[in-house]
Amino acid sequence: MVSVMHANNEIGTINSIGEIGKICRERGIYFHTDAAQTFGKLPIDVNRLNIDLLTASAHKMYGPKGAAMLYVRTGVKIKPLLHGGGHENGLRSSTVNAPAIVGFAESVKICLQEMKQENRRLIKLRDKLIKGILKNIPDSYLNGHPAKRLPNNANFRFAYIEGEAIIMQLDALNIAASTASACSSPKLQPSHVLLACGMRPQDAHGSLRLTLGRWTTEREIGQVLKILPGVVEKLRKMSPFK
Amino acid sequence: MVSVMHANNEIGTINSIGEIGKICRERGIYFHTDAAQTFGKLPIDVNRLNIDLLTASAHKMYGPKGAAMLYVRTGVKIKPLLHGGGHENGLRSSTVNAPAIVGFAESVKICLQEMKQENRRLIKLRDKLIKGILKNIPDSYLNGHPAKRLPNNANFRFAYIEGEAIIMQLDALNIAASTASACSSPKLQPSHVLLACGMRPQDAHGSLRLTLGRWTTEREIGQVLKILPGVVEKLRKMSPFK
Repeated sequence: MVSVMHANNEIGTINSIGEIGKICRERGIYFHTDAAQTFGKLPIDVNRLNIDLLTASAHKMYGPKGAAMLYVRTGVKIKPLLHGGGHENGLRSSTVNAPAIVGFAESVKICLQEMKQENRRLIKLRDKLIKGILKNIPDSYLNGHPAKRLPNNANFRFAYIEGEAIIMQLDALNIAASTASACSSPKLQPSHVLLACGMRPQDAHGSLRLTLGRWTTEREIGQVLKILPGVVEKLRKMSPFK
Repeated sequence: MVSVMHANNEIGTINSIGEIGKICRERGIYFHTDAAQTFGKLPIDVNRLNIDLLTASAHKMYGPKGAAMLYVRTGVKIKPLLHGGGHENGLRSSTVNAPAIVGFAESVKICLQEMKQENRRLIKLRDKLIKGILKNIPDSYLNGHPAKRLPNNANFRFAYIEGEAIIMQLDALNIAASTASACSSPKLQPSHVLLACGMRPQDAHGSLRLTLGRWTTEREIGQVLKILPGVVEKLRKMSPFK
């Protein structure tokens, strides 16, 4: 089996899963994609993309925590990890979380209805954020693909300073940001994603991830553009690397 | 490892896990108990009962679906089933369901506060139900231990008729009951628990499980005692076995 995430959660790059799926299909290899970042946000056609297995999670698309899904193409055989009462046709024994599942379905409905106009809105805001930062902060770089990226993701590298220090400054000014993924945030290691992209550890440490959502406004983007250059400048003045 | 459930979900029998735990401890074998039916309902002292590992579930004690717990005695080494982001000290990778966990904790608090008086109340109602049924319905028997049983569980066998037929009749009269466990209810097989107790398949098919809860009233017990004898009599008249 080959498993490739549809879009990367840290740098926002949308992978060419259709082409990967095609190669797998031609060789009779099952293809799985983790669509946690894209399901309900980008159109996904499992037939056109040659996807055999797809996972997605409710809480990544404004649904409740406690429900996730696995799409299994007819004929694909999988083995259960959890055994017991035989729920879900024996594939996942465990009392089903009916309220969360109903909430998940409702969130899918809303995301599908709003997808087109919401993506237009997010891309406009995201690009305003990216252009503004690259223009107004010297030695700043965009991580991830410039065009093939999630509508809600912006990820930057600022030379000479650490992302963690930026986050603390922004937090005090009511701006929520992160350096890598939430899962690995307690580890204080440079992002394995950025290292895999070929970045040096010291550069990966200087990265900042800013994500947008359903309730992000143009005013808030303006605030970040107003506040961030000063924060970066202040930290660079204290930096031993500059 | 030895794993024995603290109390059986179908017949309500409370197992002698303290003695089983002692035997395991003496032989250096890990002892796990599934306390889904007892956690928050009966006092459990993991030291006195020699429990190394204990599982419990929020939705079995008026908490939300989507949260469960595993108690691990200090020094007991376990391997994870789910891998990924390294949540829960690497033991269960998965975004934590914070709202459900908070709700679980709250339900534990309430159950502990009410346990003593609630058990007194349930035992009184349960025993009224058991005595009334055994007295008023001929050829009726109690399944499970007469004394060492869950305060909220009553499980009967009625000769000559099927439990499924009783349930359908009761359902039409707004009385919710079951034959075996909810997990295996779609299977239409006789309960493996009753068969393991030494019951013949035809007798296991004639079993009915009535469970009480926080909102069960004495009036409702009276209603069941009034309605059930007639239902059993009616079904027996149609029975080919009588």
